[in-house]
Amino acid sequence: MNVDSVYQELTGKPQGKIALVVMDGVGDIAIRENSYLTPLEAARTPNMDALAKDSAQGRMIPVAPGITPGSGPGHLGLFGYDPLEYEVGRGVIEALGLGIELKAGDVAARANFCTLDAKGIVTDRRAGRIPTETCEKLCAMLSKKIKKIGDVEVIIKPGKEHRFVVVLRGKGMEGPLTDADPQKVGFEIPAAMPKNPKSTKAKKTAKVIAEFYKQALPIIAKEKPANGFLMRGIAHQPDIPAFQERYNLKPACIAVYPMYKGLAQLVGMTKIEGPQTIAEQFEAYKKAYNDYDFFFIHFKYTDKYGEDGNYAAKVKAIEEFDAALPILLSKKPDVLVITGDHSTPAPMKGHSWHPQPVMIHSKFSGSDKLDRFTDTGANLGSLGVFPAKYLIRYMQANAGMLDKFGA
Amino acid sequence: MNVDSVYQELTGKPQGKIALVVMDGVGDIAIRENSYLTPLEAARTPNMDALAKDSAQGRMIPVAPGITPGSGPGHLGLFGYDPLEYEVGRGVIEALGLGIELKAGDVAARANFCTLDAKGIVTDRRAGRIPTETCEKLCAMLSKKIKKIGDVEVIIKPGKEHRFVVVLRGKGMEGPLTDADPQKVGFEIPAAMPKNPKSTKAKKTAKVIAEFYKQALPIIAKEKPANGFLMRGIAHQPDIPAFQERYNLKPACIAVYPMYKGLAQLVGMTKIEGPQTIAEQFEAYKKAYNDYDFFFIHFKYTDKYGEDGNYAAKVKAIEEFDAALPILLSKKPDVLVITGDHSTPAPMKGHSWHPQPVMIHSKFSGSDKLDRFTDTGANLGSLGVFPAKYLIRYMQANAGMLDKFGA
Repeated sequence: MNVDSVYQELTGKPQGKIALVVMDGVGDIAIRENSYLTPLEAARTPNMDALAKDSAQGRMIPVAPGITPGSGPGHLGLFGYDPLEYEVGRGVIEALGLGIELKAGDVAARANFCTLDAKGIVTDRRAGRIPTETCEKLCAMLSKKIKKIGDVEVIIKPGKEHRFVVVLRGKGMEGPLTDADPQKVGFEIPAAMPKNPKSTKAKKTAKVIAEFYKQALPIIAKEKPANGFLMRGIAHQPDIPAFQERYNLKPACIAVYPMYKGLAQLVGMTKIEGPQTIAEQFEAYKKAYNDYDFFFIHFKYTDKYGEDGNYAAKVKAIEEFDAALPILLSKKPDVLVITGDHSTPAPMKGHSWHPQPVMIHSKFSGSDKLDRFTDTGANLGSLGVFPAKYLIRYMQANAGMLDKFGA
Repeated sequence: MNVDSVYQELTGKPQGKIALVVMDGVGDIAIRENSYLTPLEAARTPNMDALAKDSAQGRMIPVAPGITPGSGPGHLGLFGYDPLEYEVGRGVIEALGLGIELKAGDVAARANFCTLDAKGIVTDRRAGRIPTETCEKLCAMLSKKIKKIGDVEVIIKPGKEHRFVVVLRGKGMEGPLTDADPQKVGFEIPAAMPKNPKSTKAKKTAKVIAEFYKQALPIIAKEKPANGFLMRGIAHQPDIPAFQERYNLKPACIAVYPMYKGLAQLVGMTKIEGPQTIAEQFEAYKKAYNDYDFFFIHFKYTDKYGEDGNYAAKVKAIEEFDAALPILLSKKPDVLVITGDHSTPAPMKGHSWHPQPVMIHSKFSGSDKLDRFTDTGANLGSLGVFPAKYLIRYMQANAGMLDKFGA
């Protein structure tokens, strides 16, 4: 019997409120240069320490051993969807990251401006990393002239430097398509082709993209150095089972950055807009306490400073997070999980594969007798090292909403 | 390559005796109210402590993360059968629990007396929890009048209070069927229907059950308050590969309670009858030492007192178990495993999902340098947190009966 359908059958009503609090990229590595202290270990965190005494801990593998996840797979795992089964196209992720509200059937592509020679050969795949302002100007030129292709609406939104996003909104559209990108210089831009040649929807999408190229290239032909563009990760918003039906939990998302709001929206969470700081986010949770069963609260700065390689700032971000925690604890959820979506070790200046620590606190979590919530401490916890996609099942179990299996 | 067939190929002859000693529901949680001591931690266990010094430890997930197993799935896992692959119907479990010796093809249902109004509407699903004696009287009335339906033998056996079991023994029978139970009051008893509408065997079974209702209801129509009955978990004894062939081990079961004898019998273990106390069970093991390769010894009271929420009694049961252990150790098996089939935390008064601790002691188990066998200590063991279905493979490995894989 399929384990997902077993979980589905066992799922009853939640016996309390659940909060999943994500310190993005909180996991780190202990190295000699940092006195063998990870940021969680170096930070002063009295509030998390107090919780740890009555919590279960462990570490989670976001996707599979050794795999470094992006934010998409990282969060899908936390939301209980196997990131290998539910793939979210990079175009979709980029669109979400830029705050575009995708609708069912939308096809999104990440794109970037490039340099073409007189024969249409790609000579620089990033057009010398043009400034963001130039990118914005070029996107405005394209947007002004191309609003529709046939019955398909075209949405163009600039990102950072040479990057932008194209969303195609219309009936009968579908991805994935191959990249309109030769991957290296010295070649022409290839046509985007359906990955499944039998899909008539993907064929229509390929035609729309070909026509988009036909209309768009002349508009920027005289620009320097960005006189062309490449499109990648062309896919539609995937059909992901709605969170509420899958877990019988009414979910709310309290995030600040568009990407995480978008990922929550993909699985059907309601976005609570407004709060900008973690203290405000916890206040928003308190205010919405009665209206939802499940709260996803996202804290960005641990990841941001990890990406910057700024160890001290990551430590400080954790301390600020901890200092705000009493707001949440003043209306304590029955099940409280604190974790990351992956590790972003400051010494690596980027995401990594290292299993992130996780702490589950509830009346029935039991205590692993650990004094703190840290990377190394979590190694000693009763949860062991487990795939992140099961975290939601532990949350359901702790919320008393999973029936016994068999007699 | 399928891992089960790899194990099968690698399996040779056991190089010694194996004992799997199950303290039912021994796993627990550490909470403040119990001074953060689980029953295993609070108990005085000098004999297990001595074993722990030369043992490997870990924790096991009975079915899947967060899933609380019944005794059936819990034990199937310990016997090396994936509980998600080999499902045992509740009717079968209940029949085993009442000591009915099921035969291949038998269809079993758990049933309970209920109250019907004049129109046949269920008004009390448990008939006010009639006393066990009333249940026995009603079952005797039914048994006396209904011995066969067509060519199908009908076996009716009373349980506690309103509960009883119906076993249908005949050719061409098969489950599972939907419940003849509206699940709530205010509705008629629905007909039991084949879950697989294409199964002619299940169709026959549905007809037999319909006829059983037709004959049985008039017999008890004048009784108060139990003038009707509901049937649930209607399924046949599953086809489980025999333990002896699967592991090349001749197995014996030394259990006291019918349910566990029944589960052992399901996989073809020989039941050693007679012993009532754990000391007597260990004596029986010594006596049968030469006749079997594998001994499953089941101790019930850790689960019983956990279910009762009686922490002190659970502690005492563990101490009694430990005090009897020298009998077993006087003829020490080459591979000794002490574990539970799941956790039954006293504070939860029921089974739970928390991984249960396990200790493997053999000449080659290695030592995890732990002074005791406890829940929290097992977190630090070399076995980590692993699915219970693999325990049997560790036992085989420690018994020197698994060949090297590849050169």
